[in-house]
Amino acid sequence: MADDAAFGGPAAHCHRLRVRYAETDQMGVAHHAAYVVWLEEARIAWLAARGQSYRELEAGGLLLPVVELSIAYRRPARFDDALTLLTVASQPGPTRLAFATRIERDGVLLAEARVTVAAVDRHGRPQRLPAALAALLSQPPSPAECR
Amino acid sequence: MADDAAFGGPAAHCHRLRVRYAETDQMGVAHHAAYVVWLEEARIAWLAARGQSYRELEAGGLLLPVVELSIAYRRPARFDDALTLLTVASQPGPTRLAFATRIERDGVLLAEARVTVAAVDRHGRPQRLPAALAALLSQPPSPAECR
Amino acid sequence: MADDAAFGGPAAHCHRLRVRYAETDQMGVAHHAAYVVWLEEARIAWLAARGQSYRELEAGGLLLPVVELSIAYRRPARFDDALTLLTVASQPGPTRLAFATRIERDGVLLAEARVTVAAVDRHGRPQRLPAALAALLSQPPSPAECR
Amino acid sequence: MADDAAFGGPAAHCHRLRVRYAETDQMGVAHHAAYVVWLEEARIAWLAARGQSYRELEAGGLLLPVVELSIAYRRPARFDDALTLLTVASQPGPTRLAFATRIERDGVLLAEARVTVAAVDRHGRPQRLPAALAALLSQPPSPAECR
Repeated sequence: MADDAAFGGPAAHCHRLRVRYAETDQMGVAHHAAYVVWLEEARIAWLAARGQSYRELEAGGLLLPVVELSIAYRRPARFDDALTLLTVASQPGPTRLAFATRIERDGVLLAEARVTVAAVDRHGRPQRLPAALAALLSQPPSPAECR
Repeated sequence: MADDAAFGGPAAHCHRLRVRYAETDQMGVAHHAAYVVWLEEARIAWLAARGQSYRELEAGGLLLPVVELSIAYRRPARFDDALTLLTVASQPGPTRLAFATRIERDGVLLAEARVTVAAVDRHGRPQRLPAALAALLSQPPSPAECR
Repeated sequence: MADDAAFGGPAAHCHRLRVRYAETDQMGVAHHAAYVVWLEEARIAWLAARGQSYRELEAGGLLLPVVELSIAYRRPARFDDALTLLTVASQPGPTRLAFATRIERDGVLLAEARVTVAAVDRHGRPQRLPAALAALLSQPPSPAECR
Repeated sequence: MADDAAFGGPAAHCHRLRVRYAETDQMGVAHHAAYVVWLEEARIAWLAARGQSYRELEAGGLLLPVVELSIAYRRPARFDDALTLLTVASQPGPTRLAFATRIERDGVLLAEARVTVAAVDRHGRPQRLPAALAALLSQPPSPAECR
């Protein structure tokens, strides 16, 4: 689903979170919709680690709604699990960003996902990705993350 | 927690919903946060049954955020349960509406709740409840609901 | 993403739901994770319309966790929108069911999705799809649905 | 709603979290149901800070479902806000724990809540609170939390 080599490289962003009780379902595992929320948190952390607040981006009139999403669930995540989300970003087109994420627990792959967002203005009209935002793709993350 | 007599009277609004799988947790019952969402759905249905769309209310600049909430959980609700929410509204002050709700399954009480909302404008400033909205309190619901 | 012809045919299952306020986000539209929950509700309704309670399926020891999920978001859904989910099911393998769903509002396509579930026992071990369950795929839905 | 002095004392537990995008609604603020999930996370962190994993508690057969919940919302929380949850626990009866929590942002009170949980076994039968669990109430939290 994504370039495995990239996840070990310097451009991979690492985000940690813990599975909430409210995110479990009666199968005794994290519900599959919770992953979608985690992926969003990881994208926002990816931006923040490169100095870009998504909150300020929206305040400035640029929104990044999700236009495509795919997830392959390999092994269940459980309540209280400490998860690691490794994310690599790319630019599949002039108005879009794509984020490939591996969700792991103790180095074991739980899920792989790919999310594409589109740059739009407040009225939903497509916008060219600002140069400053596109430039983040070639910027390495801050060194200390996930350590 | 609320006036029991009122729930059997003509002013009680009835709303039905079914517990979603995603609303369960690993205890095998509906998570307690799901009730908060159901109560909101019942309030919006209460308004709609009296001819008031909450969507239009917001579009017109009046918002009804929750300012107080209390729930007593008596018996668990489970996945796929068909629930009945019986709601009675009142006006505890010039800028507020209060909704007392009984959540039942087949006539058995599962939870009792009371939610107070405040009328505010888009900037969060308190607003006197519009007369048309206050008038809904004395209006009986449409007869066919929950039949 | 799916065979368009099939959605107009007799095997397409129709499920209706209304966007909840809690499902919106600060973009003023339904959050993209809410669609995942709606798709699950539509799958459970697909089973129910063919006489199969998912609740009983789980009680009998067969679980259907999601193993793959993809969604293409075309146009935003908004609070209080009455949505129609048209679902066609297929069997991509001996242990799996796939559900292709179109989410529409007043005949306008909002999103397309494909969800694959795997039959497993309570310990997560893959199970052959029971014949009774596989037989549902060739069974037309009850005629009155979504009317 | 709770003893203000206690929140400044040594027994107050501090938990930090950040408001997720998915937790916002179309009012542009955190939805009121999200607070219920945060309070649960804070209770689980309260236990963890005293050496008690809630995961292990459940694995051992003791569950702590919520039986009463009340929240007073004072000021809205917004996306990306870093929130502080200050929690003080008490034992209102032989089978119950109560958690009073202040939710703050930069020292400003956003909400006050009180949640009561009941000790039950896997079949929902009330259980006396184990002595080890009750003893946590008089134990100070680990010193470094929230610093």
